[in-house]
Amino acid sequence: MAKIVCQKIPVNLANRSYTISIAPKSLDQLELIGDLLEKYSHAFIVTDANVGKLYLAKLKRRLKKHLEQIDSTVCPAGERAKVMEIAYSIWQKMVGAECDRKTLLIALGGGVVGDLAGFVAATFMRGVDLLQIPTTLLAQVDSSVGGKTGINLPQGKNLVGAFWQPKGVLIDPEVLATLPDREYRAGLAEVVKYGVILSAEFFEFLEQQTEAIQQRDSQVLSHIIAECCRLKASVVVEDEFETTGHRARLNFGHTYGHAFEFLLGYGELLHGEAVAIGMCCAALLAQHTSGFSNAETERIQLLLQTLGLPTKVPAGLPASEIIRAMQCDKKKVNKSVQLVLPSAIGNVTLVAWPGDEQVASALTNR
Amino acid sequence: MAKIVCQKIPVNLANRSYTISIAPKSLDQLELIGDLLEKYSHAFIVTDANVGKLYLAKLKRRLKKHLEQIDSTVCPAGERAKVMEIAYSIWQKMVGAECDRKTLLIALGGGVVGDLAGFVAATFMRGVDLLQIPTTLLAQVDSSVGGKTGINLPQGKNLVGAFWQPKGVLIDPEVLATLPDREYRAGLAEVVKYGVILSAEFFEFLEQQTEAIQQRDSQVLSHIIAECCRLKASVVVEDEFETTGHRARLNFGHTYGHAFEFLLGYGELLHGEAVAIGMCCAALLAQHTSGFSNAETERIQLLLQTLGLPTKVPAGLPASEIIRAMQCDKKKVNKSVQLVLPSAIGNVTLVAWPGDEQVASALTNR
Repeated sequence: MAKIVCQKIPVNLANRSYTISIAPKSLDQLELIGDLLEKYSHAFIVTDANVGKLYLAKLKRRLKKHLEQIDSTVCPAGERAKVMEIAYSIWQKMVGAECDRKTLLIALGGGVVGDLAGFVAATFMRGVDLLQIPTTLLAQVDSSVGGKTGINLPQGKNLVGAFWQPKGVLIDPEVLATLPDREYRAGLAEVVKYGVILSAEFFEFLEQQTEAIQQRDSQVLSHIIAECCRLKASVVVEDEFETTGHRARLNFGHTYGHAFEFLLGYGELLHGEAVAIGMCCAALLAQHTSGFSNAETERIQLLLQTLGLPTKVPAGLPASEIIRAMQCDKKKVNKSVQLVLPSAIGNVTLVAWPGDEQVASALTNR
Repeated sequence: MAKIVCQKIPVNLANRSYTISIAPKSLDQLELIGDLLEKYSHAFIVTDANVGKLYLAKLKRRLKKHLEQIDSTVCPAGERAKVMEIAYSIWQKMVGAECDRKTLLIALGGGVVGDLAGFVAATFMRGVDLLQIPTTLLAQVDSSVGGKTGINLPQGKNLVGAFWQPKGVLIDPEVLATLPDREYRAGLAEVVKYGVILSAEFFEFLEQQTEAIQQRDSQVLSHIIAECCRLKASVVVEDEFETTGHRARLNFGHTYGHAFEFLLGYGELLHGEAVAIGMCCAALLAQHTSGFSNAETERIQLLLQTLGLPTKVPAGLPASEIIRAMQCDKKKVNKSVQLVLPSAIGNVTLVAWPGDEQVASALTNR
């Protein structure tokens, strides 16, 4: 594959439809989204200290060909930026920069920047347009697509937010070259997730490509990102506001995972790492409750391990505490926590809480 | 009219449709919205100190017949409650009360409570259902219908917010009996507005009923509120997100009005009072620029005066400052402020800023 091809993936949501554009070096080729940019004269970029250092100046330079006025703000890096104080300061900076309802907000960064800037876009003057330019693997395959935005409260993650679809998503897989190794691997957990929940074929492809993935081969990565976006878009289109249960499938591994993150203190495990362990637990639980095969559980574990991800429940966390933390999950339906369990690789089902003992039985993998 | 009739006004917005239910004593007859209430088991009420004292205990008692769990919070009364700190404290109280995505948020109060609680509903866990129970005339005829929610920033009103349609609006005109006189009259300004912008017939009805209106006749008020809700719903349905210009017609009198409010300091003039003066200015400007008749301007002035509303530009505000404040209005289109001017009673048009001198020429009515 010598020629660089831009993959365009449509997300069909009636008057909230948009396109995900994926191409190596696309950050240098904003013409790829020229149709979108020509609708605006003013953009306001939100980024973080790490990403800003690498790409902000370049992005501004490239945007100047398309827009009259470009302003920006740089947040602290990391989850601690996803709080009300930072959202408040961005609103105020936007007022100071004379942003109005026609301003395009651009989120340049990972999942935190996307969630935070997305929430600001959803709420500034009752909503302004948003362009997502995700720069981590996690954000490229997951959080930049689908319209979930949010900030954390001291009591929990994403307790405040909005569904706010972007007007476009621009993905340049080459920016992943600068991603720290651990963060890159954490993103792969969500990639594996798509295989388990939606596509046995994609799961097999990942099994076959573990070396190229570890070398961050730009062509293989482009294919993987596009495939994940396609799979995610297919789910979001079915259940934009997470009301029918379809979208809940994306939470595979997350109920166990959130409990690990919460109990260890956010930041100890990366989100993707917690999800990797959570997926192994969910697979084990499925084995215990519904005849998911041991061979399939082992395939999931092996793929995650090969990609450098943890698969064992963190030592020192009592099962009783994990159960309690899982029951605080906000994705409750009538006060009862639902779990997403695989029926086969490529397929999951939503099940009601099968009882504390059963849920604990999947925590023996230490 | 001996028998109490509940008027049901539909607001047709596809999957965001809802019904406005209007009846004297409806706060005592929650069966009127039984179909809505039966969908929930948990409600969280937001009210303010003034309204809470009068109606919170009663509402809770009545709700107990329909719901398992009812929690509430009481905010300070007045515009100062429409700030991020208060929204933040409500989110936290909702977490503390174990609210989840299935909780019904109820806004019991005037425009401030409705805007604030609406914003909280739009953003708590990415959105929970909202029931508006407006208790001021302004909120009953205007702010509770149409889905605009928001809070203020130090730099301006409603700079942060969301479009979030309620699942229902319950209006009891009898609660207006306890409304302070000045606040009641301020609400009448928005009532007159509907006549000027949308219905000559309704304007005439108001001219004929000034005495009954001043006596707060509950039957006449029910009719007036229903008519205003119908007119507002017809506009909202055409332009839910204020993008086509239809909804902008509701801002008649507001661009001048906001400038007066801002320059005098919020709270000096009530919003409705500022709008009353603003409508007179807009009528005068229409006379100067497009042949709106002097007789019609005088009809507007006379009706407002008869209802006890101010019609003259506040003394001591230089025209130049008013112009500057008007140009900071957030409803800009491509950096230019649009004005809503009457072409005849019952009809308005959107016009581009006609130049500072023209706009100032309508400020001579002191």
